[in-house]
Amino acid sequence: TWYNPNYFSLFFSMFPSTIPECDPTVSPRLYHTCMAPISVSTHAGTASHLPCSGHAQLAPKWFCMGVSMVSLSWQLAVLLGNLFILVPTEGSCPVCSPSHAEYWKILALLYYPAFYYPLAACATVGHRASYLLGCLLSWCHCVVHVWQKVDCPQSPKIYRYYSTLSYVPIIFCLMVLSLWYPALLIRSLTGKEETSNKEVMKPRPPALCSQGSATLKSLSQRNGSRGTAPLQVALLLLVAFVPTIQIVRAGMTKDVVVLLVQFGLVPSENPGMPGDMEKELSTVKHYLWSLEVCYVCSLVLCSFASLPRRSNLKALYQGAVLDVFYKAHILRPSRQAIVCWMSFASFQTAFACLGLLIQQVIFFICFAAFTFLVVIPLQSGTSSYLFKIVQNMWPFWLTLVVAVIVQNVAAHYQFLEQHPLRKELTNRRALYIITYLLFPINVLVGVLAGVWRMVISALYNAIHFCQLDISLLNRGVETFDPGYHAYCHYLKTEVSQSHPLMRVFCLLLLQPTKPQGPPEPRTGDLEEGLQLMHTKKAPSGGGRLKRSRARWWLAYTLLNNPSLMACRKTALCDPTANGAQLSPSKP
Amino acid sequence: TWYNPNYFSLFFSMFPSTIPECDPTVSPRLYHTCMAPISVSTHAGTASHLPCSGHAQLAPKWFCMGVSMVSLSWQLAVLLGNLFILVPTEGSCPVCSPSHAEYWKILALLYYPAFYYPLAACATVGHRASYLLGCLLSWCHCVVHVWQKVDCPQSPKIYRYYSTLSYVPIIFCLMVLSLWYPALLIRSLTGKEETSNKEVMKPRPPALCSQGSATLKSLSQRNGSRGTAPLQVALLLLVAFVPTIQIVRAGMTKDVVVLLVQFGLVPSENPGMPGDMEKELSTVKHYLWSLEVCYVCSLVLCSFASLPRRSNLKALYQGAVLDVFYKAHILRPSRQAIVCWMSFASFQTAFACLGLLIQQVIFFICFAAFTFLVVIPLQSGTSSYLFKIVQNMWPFWLTLVVAVIVQNVAAHYQFLEQHPLRKELTNRRALYIITYLLFPINVLVGVLAGVWRMVISALYNAIHFCQLDISLLNRGVETFDPGYHAYCHYLKTEVSQSHPLMRVFCLLLLQPTKPQGPPEPRTGDLEEGLQLMHTKKAPSGGGRLKRSRARWWLAYTLLNNPSLMACRKTALCDPTANGAQLSPSKP
Repeated sequence: TWYNPNYFSLFFSMFPSTIPECDPTVSPRLYHTCMAPISVSTHAGTASHLPCSGHAQLAPKWFCMGVSMVSLSWQLAVLLGNLFILVPTEGSCPVCSPSHAEYWKILALLYYPAFYYPLAACATVGHRASYLLGCLLSWCHCVVHVWQKVDCPQSPKIYRYYSTLSYVPIIFCLMVLSLWYPALLIRSLTGKEETSNKEVMKPRPPALCSQGSATLKSLSQRNGSRGTAPLQVALLLLVAFVPTIQIVRAGMTKDVVVLLVQFGLVPSENPGMPGDMEKELSTVKHYLWSLEVCYVCSLVLCSFASLPRRSNLKALYQGAVLDVFYKAHILRPSRQAIVCWMSFASFQTAFACLGLLIQQVIFFICFAAFTFLVVIPLQSGTSSYLFKIVQNMWPFWLTLVVAVIVQNVAAHYQFLEQHPLRKELTNRRALYIITYLLFPINVLVGVLAGVWRMVISALYNAIHFCQLDISLLNRGVETFDPGYHAYCHYLKTEVSQSHPLMRVFCLLLLQPTKPQGPPEPRTGDLEEGLQLMHTKKAPSGGGRLKRSRARWWLAYTLLNNPSLMACRKTALCDPTANGAQLSPSKP
Repeated sequence: TWYNPNYFSLFFSMFPSTIPECDPTVSPRLYHTCMAPISVSTHAGTASHLPCSGHAQLAPKWFCMGVSMVSLSWQLAVLLGNLFILVPTEGSCPVCSPSHAEYWKILALLYYPAFYYPLAACATVGHRASYLLGCLLSWCHCVVHVWQKVDCPQSPKIYRYYSTLSYVPIIFCLMVLSLWYPALLIRSLTGKEETSNKEVMKPRPPALCSQGSATLKSLSQRNGSRGTAPLQVALLLLVAFVPTIQIVRAGMTKDVVVLLVQFGLVPSENPGMPGDMEKELSTVKHYLWSLEVCYVCSLVLCSFASLPRRSNLKALYQGAVLDVFYKAHILRPSRQAIVCWMSFASFQTAFACLGLLIQQVIFFICFAAFTFLVVIPLQSGTSSYLFKIVQNMWPFWLTLVVAVIVQNVAAHYQFLEQHPLRKELTNRRALYIITYLLFPINVLVGVLAGVWRMVISALYNAIHFCQLDISLLNRGVETFDPGYHAYCHYLKTEVSQSHPLMRVFCLLLLQPTKPQGPPEPRTGDLEEGLQLMHTKKAPSGGGRLKRSRARWWLAYTLLNNPSLMACRKTALCDPTANGAQLSPSKP
C-alpha cells in the first residue's frame, strides 16, 4: 500500500530531541518568595498616596508606558503561557483536566498585576524615599530576569529560544525603569523644580489629581498593552512555524519525497516508479522555502494592517456627536459606560491578538494561493489549474466582458439623452428588450459580483477586526457588535470625564503662584486642551478691559467647544452642583 | 494496516448502477427545430407592438409573473445545467475543456430568452389574433414538455427524478398560460371592455406606455426570478444530498462500520477487536439519519432566512433621501444608473442563489455541531467534548463570570453617584485600582467577546447576503459592495422614472372619456400612487371653487410628495422642457 504508518515516525525523526529542563540559580519560586513581601510592604507604604498624584501627570508619557508595559507584558506572557505554551509540553490538555497548578494560574491573573504595581506606584508618590525604593525594586527585578535568562537561555517550549525572546520587551522595560528611577532621584536631590509642585500638591483636591492620572493611566495602559500583546502573539506565531519548517526542510529525505510524489503534491516525471529523486527533492525544498517566505510576508503585513484610529474623541470634545455616532447620544456616565470603560483597554488587547491570528491565517492562505497558483507555475513554466481554467474558459469570460461593455456603451450612447441641462432616459423600448435578453448573462455577472461581495466583506471584517471604532455590523444593528458597543460607552465616559479644556483649567488652578497667562504646557497630554482654548497672553490693562477680554475668551472657548455649554448652564443654575469638584460632565 | 483501498470500492458499491439514457418521442432537437421558426415569425409579427403597450399595465401581476417565470426558470435551468449538472456526468470537467457543445451553451444564454419571448409578447399586443397565437404557443409548449417528462421521467443526472422535479415550476407556469390565453381570447370576443382601451391606445404616446410596462416588467421579472432561481438551487441541494445519504444508510454494512470505528468516528465498547457490530451499526444509521434531519432543517431555515425588503422605494418617492442613503444623492439617470438598473434583477437572482448556498453550508454546520455536541450526547448519556471542556474548565468560567458581575455591581453601587438630577462618577481611585487589577481577566473576557464578534458578523453577513438593500461593509465604504452599489443606482433610476403619482396622472390622461374624479384603480400597481395622492371625489361647483380646490389638491400633493417640487418648477421655467413627454425626472 502507498500508506505506511512508518512514514509518521520517519517524518518526526527529522526533529531533534527536546532540550532538557534547566534550573536557573535564582529559581522563580525563590524570586517570588523574596519579592512578594517587598511588594506587599510597598503597597502598604504607598497606599495613602496611590494612585492619586498630580506628579504622575508631569512625567513623560513613555516612562509610564514603560511601567505599564512591564506589568502588562508579564501578564500577557502568563496568559499566553496558560493558554498556549503549556499545551504541548505537559502532555495532557491542561484546559481539559485542571490540576492544582491551574487554579494557581487563575490566581496568578490577579497576583501579577499586584506584584508589579509598586514599580509604577513609586514614581507617582513624588518623594525621595519612594524614588530610592523604585531604584532598588527595578534593579532587583531587572537583575533577576537577566540572570535567569543568562542561566537558562534555552527552554523546551515550542522553540529553544522562545522563552528568551518573549522576555526581551520585559527586560527592556525594566532596564528603562532602572535608569529612570536614579535620574528621578538625582533630580529630586539636586533640583528645586519639584518643591513648588509638592507644595501645590499638599492640599491635593482628590477629584482633580485622580482625573489627570486617570487619563494618563488609561492612555499608557492602552498603548502599552496594544504594543506588547500582539508582539507576543506575533512572536509565538513566528517561532511556532519558521524553525519547524526550517528543520523539516533541512531534514527532508528522499523517502518523504517519494511519499509526497505518490500523494500527487509534487510534480514528477515518472510518478509511478520512484527512481532518482534529486530533482524532486530540490522541488520540495523550494516549495517549503516558498511557504516559509509566504508565512513571514503575511506576518509582516499583519503588523501593518491595523490602521491608525480616527480622531473620534477630538470630534466629540468639540461637540460633533452625530459625526461619530449614528444617532444622538447623551454623554454622561452610566453603569454600562463605566463597565465598558473598565474593560476597554483589555478588549483592545484581546481584539488585537485575535485579529492578528485571523489576519495571519487569511493572509497566509492568500499569499500561498498566489505563490502556488501564479508565481511557481510562471517560474517553472508549467501551467497551473488557474491558468488552465482561464485559458479553456475564455469564451465564457469573453461573453461576460462583451456583455458588460455592450451594456455600458449602449447606456451611454443610446439610452441617455445628453441634454445640455440634465440627462434623460430615452429609447426605452430598446432598453427593456436588451435588459430582458441579457438577463441570463447578467445572472452570471451577478454570480461573480456575489463572490466578490463575499470576499470583500470577509477581507474587510478581517482587516478591521482589531479596530473597535468600526462596527462590523450594519448601521441599524451596529451596537450588537461587542467591540463597538464597548468603544461607544468608553467614548461617552472619556468625553464626559476628561475634556482637555477642563484639564487645562485644573492645571491653571494648581499653579496659582505662576505669573499671569497660561503656563507653558509641560506634557504633550495637555497641549490638546490648550490648542482648543486658543488663549493669548493677557496684557496688563484696566479692570474693565480685562473683564471684557475674559468674556471674549469665554465666548470664543464656548464657540470652539459647544459641548461645554451644557455644563456651564447647569453649574450656574443647579443648586446641588458641587463647585469644588469641578466635574465637567453633561446632564 | 487500518487503511485499505478496497474500502473505497466497498463504499461506492452501495450505490445502484446509473439509469440508462432515455430518448423521448419528441426530442429536444425536434422541438426546437419546429418551435424556433414559429418564435421568430411571432417576433417579426409583433415587433411593431413590442414591448410597448399600455395593455400590459392592465393585466394582473400574477399573469405577467407567470410569463416571466417560464422564461426565467428555463434560463436558470440552462444556467444551472451548464454550471453544475453536467459536471459529474460528462466525465471530464466541462469548464476546463470546452467542446463545441460549450459554445452552444453560451449561445443558449441568448437563445432561450428570445425563444420564450413570444409567450409574453402575445399578451401585450392586445389583439384577438395575438391571443389566439398565444393560446397555440402555450398549449404547444406545455404539451411538449409534459409529453417529454411522461416519456422520460428518470434521468441519470444527480438523482433519477431531478430532471422531472426541476421542470415542475416551468410546466406549472405553462399550464397557467394555457388557461389564461383562452380566457383572454374569449373575453376579447364577447366583452367590450377592451374596445375603449384600444381606442385610447391608438395615439399611444411612446414614453408613457413604455413607462408603465417597464415598471410592470421590472417588477414581474424580479418576482419571477427571485421565486424560481433559489427554488432550483434548493431542489438541487436537496436531491444531491438526501437520496445519496438515504442510499448510504440503507446499504450500510458491518465492514464499513468497522472502518468507522477504527477511525474513531463512532464510539464502540471494544474498538480494538471488531466482533459483533450490531449496536455500532445502529449507531451509525442513527448518526446518518441525524445528519439528514440537520440537512433538511437547515434547508428549510434557509428558505425563511431572506427577510422582506424595507420600503426604501416608498421613502424615496416621498423625498426622504437621507433616510435611505447615508449622504444626499441626486436622483437622476446616469450611465452607471442605467447599467445597474439593467443588471439589478439578475444580480438579485444571482445573489439569492449564492446566498442560499452559503446559508445552507453555515446552517448545516451549526445544526450538525449542535446535534453531535449536545443532542446526541444527551440522548446516549455519554459526555461530549463540549461538556467535558465546560465541566473541567469551570474554575476558569467561574472566574470570568465573577469578574464581570463584580465590575457591574461595583459600577452601580460604588462608582456611580445616584444624583437626583444626573449621574456622576465617584470613587475614582478605587475605579482605577480595580481596572488595573482586573486587566488580565478582562483580556480573557475580551477574547470571548472577540470570538462572539467574529461569529455574529459572519452570521449577519451570511444571512443578509442575498439582501441587496443592505451593505455588508461599513458606513464610509458601503458602495464598494457591488450588490449595494447596484441597488442604490437602481433606486435612483426607478424613483426618477416611475413615480406612482406620475403613473396615476398618465392613467388619467389615457382615460379622458371617463366621468370626473379619479378612476377606480384597476391594478394594484397603481394603488400606491392613488394613496399618495389622497384625492377626493370632486363635487360639481362653480369655476372659482373648482380652481381653488384644484390648487388645494396641488398643495396637498406636493406636501405629501416633496420630491415632485423640483419637476414642477423646472417644467414651468425651463424653455427646453418637452411638455408632451411628461417626464418626471428631477434636474
